[in-house]
Amino acid sequence: MTSKPRPSEDEIIANFFAPLAGPAGLGLVDDVALLAVPPDHELVLTTDVLTSGVHFFPDDPPDAIARKALRANLSDLAAKAAEPVGFLLGLALPDDWTADWLAAFAKGLAEDAACFDCPLIGGDTVKSLGALSLSIAALGTVPKGKMVPRAGVQDGDLLYVTGTIGDAALGLRLRRGADRAWSEALSRPARDYLLMRYLLPLPRLGLRDALRGFAHAGMDISDGLVGDLAKMLALTGMTVEVALPDVPLSKAARQALALDPSLVEPILTGGDDYEIVCAVALADQAAFEREAAAVGLAVARIGTAQKGAEKPLFRDGEGRPLAFSAASYHHF
Amino acid sequence: MTSKPRPSEDEIIANFFAPLAGPAGLGLVDDVALLAVPPDHELVLTTDVLTSGVHFFPDDPPDAIARKALRANLSDLAAKAAEPVGFLLGLALPDDWTADWLAAFAKGLAEDAACFDCPLIGGDTVKSLGALSLSIAALGTVPKGKMVPRAGVQDGDLLYVTGTIGDAALGLRLRRGADRAWSEALSRPARDYLLMRYLLPLPRLGLRDALRGFAHAGMDISDGLVGDLAKMLALTGMTVEVALPDVPLSKAARQALALDPSLVEPILTGGDDYEIVCAVALADQAAFEREAAAVGLAVARIGTAQKGAEKPLFRDGEGRPLAFSAASYHHF
Repeated sequence: MTSKPRPSEDEIIANFFAPLAGPAGLGLVDDVALLAVPPDHELVLTTDVLTSGVHFFPDDPPDAIARKALRANLSDLAAKAAEPVGFLLGLALPDDWTADWLAAFAKGLAEDAACFDCPLIGGDTVKSLGALSLSIAALGTVPKGKMVPRAGVQDGDLLYVTGTIGDAALGLRLRRGADRAWSEALSRPARDYLLMRYLLPLPRLGLRDALRGFAHAGMDISDGLVGDLAKMLALTGMTVEVALPDVPLSKAARQALALDPSLVEPILTGGDDYEIVCAVALADQAAFEREAAAVGLAVARIGTAQKGAEKPLFRDGEGRPLAFSAASYHHF
Repeated sequence: MTSKPRPSEDEIIANFFAPLAGPAGLGLVDDVALLAVPPDHELVLTTDVLTSGVHFFPDDPPDAIARKALRANLSDLAAKAAEPVGFLLGLALPDDWTADWLAAFAKGLAEDAACFDCPLIGGDTVKSLGALSLSIAALGTVPKGKMVPRAGVQDGDLLYVTGTIGDAALGLRLRRGADRAWSEALSRPARDYLLMRYLLPLPRLGLRDALRGFAHAGMDISDGLVGDLAKMLALTGMTVEVALPDVPLSKAARQALALDPSLVEPILTGGDDYEIVCAVALADQAAFEREAAAVGLAVARIGTAQKGAEKPLFRDGEGRPLAFSAASYHHF
C-alpha cells in the first residue's frame, strides 16, 4: 500500500483548514481571528477537549471525530440559546497521522461547519508525543440578557428534555463489545441507531427561540441526565422527582431496556447525550411546546422542580426509587 | 512519601480553577462564559496548544508550564495590539497527575492571570491516555480597526523587534544538555538567564500603544526570526536584508555565540522567542521609539522593508550571506 506524502504545517493550514475559514479567520494567515460582535449582543464561549481513547475510539472515522468535537461545543451553545459564529481548533497530532486521515478529518469538519453555519476562525496544529487530542473553543452570540443560564430553575418550573436519553451510552457499550446478552439480541436497526447516536451527537440548535422566549435555565446533558439535572437544580436549591416512563427513550433504547432492565443505569447516567434539559414556567408550557414543535424538535416533560436540598429522585414504572452507583460520568 | 488524595473533577474546578475566574466566567458553574465586548471594539482571538515533550519538558515546574501556555497566547494578543480580557483553558491530564502538581499548576496560572489582567473564563479538564496537553484560547479587544495585522508591511517600512532574539532557543539547547563545548564554558548567570528565557516567555503587552499608533504590521516571533519575518513580509510582496549586528542579542546569547559561532543558526531560526516583529513607517520612527521607551521596552531596528519576492537575506558582521538548514521550527 502506498500512502500520500504528509503535508507540511503550512500546507495543512493552506490546503485543509483555510477552505473552512470564515471572514473572522482572516484567511488563517494571521496569528489571530478578528470578530465584531453585533451591537446589543453578548458573546457566549465554550470549550471542550476530546482525547483519543477517552472521548472517541482511535479507529473511529476521522470525519466523525471532527464532527463530534465541533458538535459537543455546539451543543453547549444550543443549550444557552446562542447562535454559533465560529470556532477555534487546537489539534495535537500523534506521530502516525497520515495525509488521508487529515483530509477526511478536515472534510467532516468542513461539512459540519457549513451545515451549522459555524466557520473555523483560527487554530493551532501541533505534534503530540502521546495520543490525538482535539480542543475546540466555540463562540456564539445572544441578544444582551438573553443567555439561558444554568442557575435559574424556579420553584414550580416544568423540566423538559429534548430528543431521547441514553442512546449514546448504549451505543458506547455496543461499540466496546461488552454486554453480549442484550447486544446480540438487539435488532440490527436498533444496534445501528445506537452506535450512530454515540458517534454523532446532534446539537439542538433549533431550540434557540423556544429557549430565549421561555427558559429560566438550561444546560446540555453530556455527563448523564441524573448528574447533570442534579447540578442544574442544586444551583437554585431545587429538586425534582422523575418517573422513568416520563424520560423520553428511543425505540432502540426501549428494545435494549426490555432485554436487560439493568441498562436503566447507563441510560440515565452514562452521558454523551448532547440533549438539552431546561426549565420553563408552568404558564409558558403551551407556548414553549408550540415553539419547539414549530422547528420539529421533540421535547418531553420529565417533572416539576420544587424547593429542596435532596438530589433528584428517579422512580421506575412501579414507583420504586432507582439507585445508581454513580450519578454521572467523571474523568477522575 | 505520602501523596494527597486526588480531587474529583468538580473539586478541581471549585478548588483550583474557580478562584481564577473573572466575571465573564460566571463562577465556572455554567457550561459557558458570557462576555460583553465594549462598543466600538472588536474581539481578537488566538489559540495555542502545548504538548508535553514538544513544547515543554514533562518535568518542568508545573507553574512554569501553566505560565508558558498562557504567555504564548498573550504574546499573540500583544503583537496584535490587543488588550487581554480572558482565556479558556483545555487541560488533558495523563493518568499520573497528582494533587500537588495540579495545585502548583493552578497557582502559576493564577499569578499570571492576575499579573497580566487576563482572568480564566472557562475551560474543560479531561483525562488523557497519552501525554499532558494544554490548550488555551485567549481573547482580547482592540478599538475597531486598530488590530495590527500580519499582512501590512509597506515598501520602506522600518522593521523592529522587541527585546532580544535567540535566548529561548539557546536555553532549550542547554535544557537538553546537548552541545557540551559551549554550554560548559558559559558563565553560570548566562546559563541561568537563557534557561529562564526558554522556560518563561515575556509577552510584550507594553508595546500596545506604540503598535496601535504606528505599526503597519506585526506578529510575534514564535518559530524563529528568519521564518516568521519571511512569512510576514511575503504577505505584501516585501523582503529585507538584515545584518547580524543589528539583531538584538542578550549578553548571554553574545557570550554563547562567541564560544560557538555556529549558534547563529538556532539564535535566528530556533523559535520560542515570543518577541514582537513589526513594521513602522520611516516618518514615525521617532514617535514609535519614544512610545516604546516610555514603557521601558527595548526595540531594535533590524532593517528596511523593500519590494521583492526573495526571502529575507541575513548577513554576518562581515557582510557575508548566512545560510540556514531550516528557516523556522516545524512540527511536521
